[in-house]
Amino acid sequence: MTIFGTHKVIDCDIHNELPALKTLYPYLPEHWVAYCNESAFVGPDANDYPKGASITARPEAKLASGNPPGSDLALLRTQTLDAWNAEFGILNCAYRVTSVHNQDLAAALASAINQWQIDEWLAKEPRLRASLVVPSQNPALAAAEIDRFGDHPGFVQVALPVRSEAPYGNRRYDPIYAAAVRHNLVVGIHYGGAPGLPSTPAGWALTYLEEQASMAQVFQSQVMSLIIEGVFDRFPTLRVALIEGGWTWLPSLMWRIDKEWKGLRHNTPWVRRLPSDYMREHIRLTIQPLDAPPDPEHLRQIIDQIESDEMLLFSTDYPHHHFDTPEEALPVTLEEPLLTKILAENARVFYRLG
Amino acid sequence: MTIFGTHKVIDCDIHNELPALKTLYPYLPEHWVAYCNESAFVGPDANDYPKGASITARPEAKLASGNPPGSDLALLRTQTLDAWNAEFGILNCAYRVTSVHNQDLAAALASAINQWQIDEWLAKEPRLRASLVVPSQNPALAAAEIDRFGDHPGFVQVALPVRSEAPYGNRRYDPIYAAAVRHNLVVGIHYGGAPGLPSTPAGWALTYLEEQASMAQVFQSQVMSLIIEGVFDRFPTLRVALIEGGWTWLPSLMWRIDKEWKGLRHNTPWVRRLPSDYMREHIRLTIQPLDAPPDPEHLRQIIDQIESDEMLLFSTDYPHHHFDTPEEALPVTLEEPLLTKILAENARVFYRLG
Repeated sequence: MTIFGTHKVIDCDIHNELPALKTLYPYLPEHWVAYCNESAFVGPDANDYPKGASITARPEAKLASGNPPGSDLALLRTQTLDAWNAEFGILNCAYRVTSVHNQDLAAALASAINQWQIDEWLAKEPRLRASLVVPSQNPALAAAEIDRFGDHPGFVQVALPVRSEAPYGNRRYDPIYAAAVRHNLVVGIHYGGAPGLPSTPAGWALTYLEEQASMAQVFQSQVMSLIIEGVFDRFPTLRVALIEGGWTWLPSLMWRIDKEWKGLRHNTPWVRRLPSDYMREHIRLTIQPLDAPPDPEHLRQIIDQIESDEMLLFSTDYPHHHFDTPEEALPVTLEEPLLTKILAENARVFYRLG
Repeated sequence: MTIFGTHKVIDCDIHNELPALKTLYPYLPEHWVAYCNESAFVGPDANDYPKGASITARPEAKLASGNPPGSDLALLRTQTLDAWNAEFGILNCAYRVTSVHNQDLAAALASAINQWQIDEWLAKEPRLRASLVVPSQNPALAAAEIDRFGDHPGFVQVALPVRSEAPYGNRRYDPIYAAAVRHNLVVGIHYGGAPGLPSTPAGWALTYLEEQASMAQVFQSQVMSLIIEGVFDRFPTLRVALIEGGWTWLPSLMWRIDKEWKGLRHNTPWVRRLPSDYMREHIRLTIQPLDAPPDPEHLRQIIDQIESDEMLLFSTDYPHHHFDTPEEALPVTLEEPLLTKILAENARVFYRLG
């Protein structure tokens, strides 16, 4: 029993962490192992969850071994799947191969991680599903990786970091979307990334606090780009999940883009419906982290302003989750069928889970 | 009489446009006139209001002379001050000297524009107030310009474009804030700018529609930077207006920054209160353009979620305004004293108007 009673949940954001770069060596061609050793490669530049930040991991998720929180299946199983009465849990491994400048190494690392996910996670726990790690800085290599593993029943999603070299509506990313659609996978855009661009549209922020808080603006820009630059017109069956980017900004973004589109739609003749209609059809958002207002009534208003009961997906964001008690995971009273939809049914439909 | 009955308004965003670069020649030192002619300088790179975009100017604001909308005082007076029963109107001249790479030329242009504003606008219409144009890409030169004109009673504000080379919380901009505080001026951060950075935190967008819509995210980043990097702690009397950036995103931003600050406040030991408290004390926002939801009740909810009746400032954004009828300028029924505060009193207090 949880705060949600006998409801089963589908947890759409659980982080399985790589214990160490060496974990991948059995999965890497000898050439790349030698390259890593010779170049003293220690891993990607991106450091989305710095060890020192208290919000990086719940205290109870820390491991006596010193390995990263989220790297132990047994503990993760107990603290997420069992604790939350989860029917399914979707893994998002945040090893950012996208910030590895050697794109061939990035591709080799991605393949190694994906095979490791099959062996160490999917094969050992039937409730888990996973996201493909791909070298999205090179869409052709990323598409090849999607083709390699995309039909494995454990993979339900292709993970892209929200910070990118170009907005995701750019046609350079089309091979990734084509491959995702080909294999019936969701594209999951996830908090983080380190493409070398400033972390805000006004330039480089100084603190991790600003980088963390401003990630919500990056998500907003990506949503706009996907719609305005026509991705959903080129790929009408594409499904996109926004993971760990907050969502209370969604109504305001809908209103703004709809309004600007009405005035400037001749810029984008392929966009034939209101941008908010595209959002409601193609986009889903995980509920954690929740940028919760002090007044739960205001949160309820935001949910109503979305004008769709299908867009929100339950998630814990384990082991980063920001809430102290289960009640805080979704601190608002929801009626049926909305509650059941957010907890499980929206994800079941969107990810085509059994 | 307007939709607001006998209420007088204070219009916090009216655009006075320069008829042509040559308008400034009488105000420029001979050296710079020669330089402009010799180098075929045509004006700043920034093109925040492209002529071709229908939202750039209301049809009735277009001039038979072919000069830019907003460049004729008589028409502006009739269409804004008289039409809206305005007690005061604050001019924001959007000539973007900030994107002129020759910083000395930028400073000379700013001085010329400011003297032209005194002669052609402030001296001729007592209801008008104006914003100082400054070369903010060089804060020392900008501070000198503020010192030159800052005590003129017609200037109530220093204008900065929202797109900047660095986030405005960066200490490089402190000379501007020190000068604004010294002369009791508001710092007005305004839609637009062309600093050379990508227009979104995910990279360059392709269309003007995306640039226009994503400006709301730039405002959000600047608000965060000002607070988290300690500008209001270094300048406790500084007042900042956000002009033409929308505002329905404000509650969500408050909730997000407050939450992240709680988890990461050790990054910013100087920030001693909730970030949203800083916003409510130091920041105001003009109401146009309004990213209005289809349901006016949702707009009313957003106003309540701000949890302050002092933050919103009436504005028309003439000649760019997006609304077709006066009813659409603020399409929600507001009770007193909130209505009077938004229409005039918040601006009167904030801008210290008579």
